[in-house]
Amino acid sequence: MPITITKSTGQKELLNIEKVKHACRRAGASAQLCEVVGQEVKQQAKDGMTTKEIYEIVQGIISKEHPPVAARLNLKDAIIKLGPLGYDFEKYIARVLAAYGYNTELPPILQGACTTHEVDVLAVKDGRAAMIECKLRHEIGIFISIKDTMSTWARFLDLVDGSAIGKCPHIEECWIVTNSRFSHDSIQYGHCKNMVMLSWNHPKERPLPAWIDDKGLYPITLLPQLEHNTEKSLIDGGFVLLHDLATADPSLVAQKSNIPEETARDCVKKAQLILQA
Amino acid sequence: MPITITKSTGQKELLNIEKVKHACRRAGASAQLCEVVGQEVKQQAKDGMTTKEIYEIVQGIISKEHPPVAARLNLKDAIIKLGPLGYDFEKYIARVLAAYGYNTELPPILQGACTTHEVDVLAVKDGRAAMIECKLRHEIGIFISIKDTMSTWARFLDLVDGSAIGKCPHIEECWIVTNSRFSHDSIQYGHCKNMVMLSWNHPKERPLPAWIDDKGLYPITLLPQLEHNTEKSLIDGGFVLLHDLATADPSLVAQKSNIPEETARDCVKKAQLILQA
Repeated sequence: MPITITKSTGQKELLNIEKVKHACRRAGASAQLCEVVGQEVKQQAKDGMTTKEIYEIVQGIISKEHPPVAARLNLKDAIIKLGPLGYDFEKYIARVLAAYGYNTELPPILQGACTTHEVDVLAVKDGRAAMIECKLRHEIGIFISIKDTMSTWARFLDLVDGSAIGKCPHIEECWIVTNSRFSHDSIQYGHCKNMVMLSWNHPKERPLPAWIDDKGLYPITLLPQLEHNTEKSLIDGGFVLLHDLATADPSLVAQKSNIPEETARDCVKKAQLILQA
Repeated sequence: MPITITKSTGQKELLNIEKVKHACRRAGASAQLCEVVGQEVKQQAKDGMTTKEIYEIVQGIISKEHPPVAARLNLKDAIIKLGPLGYDFEKYIARVLAAYGYNTELPPILQGACTTHEVDVLAVKDGRAAMIECKLRHEIGIFISIKDTMSTWARFLDLVDGSAIGKCPHIEECWIVTNSRFSHDSIQYGHCKNMVMLSWNHPKERPLPAWIDDKGLYPITLLPQLEHNTEKSLIDGGFVLLHDLATADPSLVAQKSNIPEETARDCVKKAQLILQA
């Protein structure tokens, strides 16, 4: 009998075991383990469950079998943990793009033709500069509205006008990157304007999680049982990606982030485990 | 000794008795009554009071001396009472502009070049059409941000592009009308784009309250002791301005608004009193 589950957006959909197995494989679990997970979810799932509850079943099984893979399943939550302010999310997105060959910077306030603007990230590749607006939402169900998208486009236009009169650097592309989703009319408007729109599920062929998973660009907030203060200290110390930690000397991590050396050593080890999983 | 008071925005400023007398005169009180009000406020005001408390002193005095004038002092609150949804505020703004010779309509959804848009009011005068975004805020201290202003401008541009390809009517001007205030950079951006920006205190020489006061275009929510349901019924019945009520036959008001004839008669009488004050 088909089972209906409730998504974080409140929408209902049929439980799709293939999707569950796909998420499992994406996190790096073996085909065999994902098969087990699929069978188990099929048995335990009940009509009316939320996707969160389904995900907890998956998490429970993988945690027992392969803890580092379970940690990687937490990407969605880990990104939310970069908040509540948007600044660390901007830093993170800059690092993700840097891994794809973009020259990124978190620019100072830029001067447009009409007024000044806070641009989250500037990214340059092959001589083309992109202005990137980063929208961190604390619940995945909160959509990026067309108002957000239109105001981003208006900001871009003002900066293009500003650069034409020498007030700011030349910018060719306008991006919005979010951990959430775009409303339907947001996408319609953004595409019409040739904006690059990157969200949790858009574009379908290569959404934000794919950019992250393909190169293992996980944020350090993926580390399990880490205190929020320690996360902040590590990011302030320049350790934004798990990879930064996994390849660093623990005493340098402790020094740069101003945390106890024991904590630093523990973090480095955990980061290595997750990335090797 | 100068007395400092706290504005609804949280800002502090020196109590200015001339400003108090000006508000009193604006509501239609005699110069003599306003002089009394000024003296009384000077005596009762204490350091640290809010503008709301000062306003209550004024209200108290005028209520005793001239109740209909006191009602007119309530304009700020009366407009907020048009909410919580924005639709009645849009209707009201359309009526205010109509009194200045604009041909106004609350249009259906319009088709821009990229997507569809909900435009609050379309206003045409001397062959020039304006798209008007109405922003009702429930607290005067909440500013209209540059994000609001930029998204309004982007919407306007999409409609201009839409009209160029025959998808929607031709629109020449972009307005924002609010019962609140604009942030500093909102104004800077809007002026740079030649937008018409009308708020509680902008433009200084002729802000929204002046448009209303000069022609006595008060909303029916100015009627004292009126139930919210009755207000809604009257507006739904087409009675948006006090003037609509004051010049109507009570039994027609009752019929169109689906309210008891006694209530209608009472409303009509009160509306006449306030307008004649």
